[in-house]
Amino acid sequence: MDAIVSVDATSAKRVEQPRNAAERLAQLVYEDMRLVDALILERMQSHVTLIPDLARYLIEAGGKRVRPMITVACANMLGYRDEAPLKLAAAVEFIHTATLLHDDVVDKSGMRRGQQAANLIWGNASSVLVGDFLFARSFTLMVEAGSMKALGVLSSAASTIAEGEVRQLAAIKDIGVSVETYMAIIGAKTAALFAAAAQVSGIVAERPLAEEMALETYGRELGLAFQLVDDALDYSGREAALGKTVGDDFREGKVTLPVALSIKQAGSRDGGEDEARFWTRTISEGDQLDGDFDIALSYMRENGALSATLQAAHDHATRAREALAIFPKNKWRMTLEDLADFVVERAY
Amino acid sequence: MDAIVSVDATSAKRVEQPRNAAERLAQLVYEDMRLVDALILERMQSHVTLIPDLARYLIEAGGKRVRPMITVACANMLGYRDEAPLKLAAAVEFIHTATLLHDDVVDKSGMRRGQQAANLIWGNASSVLVGDFLFARSFTLMVEAGSMKALGVLSSAASTIAEGEVRQLAAIKDIGVSVETYMAIIGAKTAALFAAAAQVSGIVAERPLAEEMALETYGRELGLAFQLVDDALDYSGREAALGKTVGDDFREGKVTLPVALSIKQAGSRDGGEDEARFWTRTISEGDQLDGDFDIALSYMRENGALSATLQAAHDHATRAREALAIFPKNKWRMTLEDLADFVVERAY
Repeated sequence: MDAIVSVDATSAKRVEQPRNAAERLAQLVYEDMRLVDALILERMQSHVTLIPDLARYLIEAGGKRVRPMITVACANMLGYRDEAPLKLAAAVEFIHTATLLHDDVVDKSGMRRGQQAANLIWGNASSVLVGDFLFARSFTLMVEAGSMKALGVLSSAASTIAEGEVRQLAAIKDIGVSVETYMAIIGAKTAALFAAAAQVSGIVAERPLAEEMALETYGRELGLAFQLVDDALDYSGREAALGKTVGDDFREGKVTLPVALSIKQAGSRDGGEDEARFWTRTISEGDQLDGDFDIALSYMRENGALSATLQAAHDHATRAREALAIFPKNKWRMTLEDLADFVVERAY
Repeated sequence: MDAIVSVDATSAKRVEQPRNAAERLAQLVYEDMRLVDALILERMQSHVTLIPDLARYLIEAGGKRVRPMITVACANMLGYRDEAPLKLAAAVEFIHTATLLHDDVVDKSGMRRGQQAANLIWGNASSVLVGDFLFARSFTLMVEAGSMKALGVLSSAASTIAEGEVRQLAAIKDIGVSVETYMAIIGAKTAALFAAAAQVSGIVAERPLAEEMALETYGRELGLAFQLVDDALDYSGREAALGKTVGDDFREGKVTLPVALSIKQAGSRDGGEDEARFWTRTISEGDQLDGDFDIALSYMRENGALSATLQAAHDHATRAREALAIFPKNKWRMTLEDLADFVVERAY
């Protein structure tokens, strides 16, 4: 086997000595993901050159392609080799990329995937329209995959994502957001696409409903774990590892789980008044001073909100792993199981 | 028959004495459009209340529902009575509404359908996300309609629309935009959806390819005529009739056909230097003074650009009418033919 092989303009990499579950998965799906990446590059083309220019900027920026890898790996776990899961995998990545482009406009984020966000270079209007283009193309790919049921699942996931984003928007600066509300938000904005990415492989492989639902659960729980780790990293991570700006959530007044948990305990324990006032001022009133982010981080380390968030991520990852128990124990299943653990490990 | 019957929160109206082709069409499709409107209202629902609030604001604002009416009327012309064209009609209106929401963000327009644009009330972020929601729901409706081929046509139209919008964005303030480029832009951003709206009725009715293509041509030519009239009205129209601000295109520096034609003749005739400088200053440099819009309008009346735009609209309407010649001459066909004429007449 070659040493690390770089494929032009794709993220599919052959890794000689995989160091973790993500790299093992990438190695297993290497050939399939080359095909998925080729599809992605082909279908983001347009005679309107700004579209591939902008799409390439984001798509080549080293996104992890976690979602399409899940579709491809689940299909392989089921022993199903066909073009359909590859097309659906590319469609899933297009939906995700469209969401990122629109998110950048919505969030006014400065960095994405380790580089300046696309809307800062091309403008909001282009980000909105190129997102629309990729979203439309994702459905063309789904049509080619030929499964009306898979189309229904992915279109439903797409409207659920939008619902989750709208709820998150409404929850900004709202220190009344409960843990339950927050979990519903990320269940919609993040976990729905992970769930669909896994489920559609079972649909095109025409597996029994119990297996299709087990795949859906795997994707959903993995997505929840993934998002919770992201939320913790937005406070405790390093920018290089995160690929976006640390502290974005805090500056935007997003009430993620670490904040919701901090607010909850500060309101209920004796002597929590100072901390409660801190969260009201910085999140609810949006009145942030230099050094406030570091204070937020130290509160979260003291009050246990960060470790509780990672514990919740760990619990969801365990449920993802357990959902695969009904499938034959092959190398694909084992790697998908390991991936669930890895998602949480990357937080440490 | 009742006098004008108002259906709650829908635009389907029963008209006792139709005064023009649009009203005759509305009368013919009245029962079907009640069902389409009910579908639209049902499918824009979400437990996230901002979504139906914002969607309703736009959908109930008295959009003309021209596109879904075309789908429904074409299906009736073919003698095809089924749920599928109704679902596709609702899907077409959702795609259109999503496009309007995103357009408002892109264009920064102040008025839409005779009222303040949604993004000025709810903010750009909500307009982007609710647009995404409606777009996703449109595909769920298409899945229910059950035709993979119709899904392919509409998803392709949706990516073409985005391409047209991006090209239009790049053409802002560009006085080098040719008549041909402009026609390609509106072919994509407007006519593609009209074409698909008509074509899908032939697809679900399983008509021969020649008929499907004739429907596509009808929609495309009607869409071109419709957009050209809109472009003329943006200079010569009255705000009440237009439902949006007159002069928006001028203020945004959009090179629509009246502007492209004005620039072309000013550059080629003797004594056109003053007018050429005017267009360079107001469109290319975006340097507009009070009274410039009136000067633009009087230039367009003098140089014949407005009448040439309406003549082009008339020619496209004639081609739309002629495309229907292969179908049996029933009341549906005659009304669709009249609609093509009406689209142009509303400019006078």
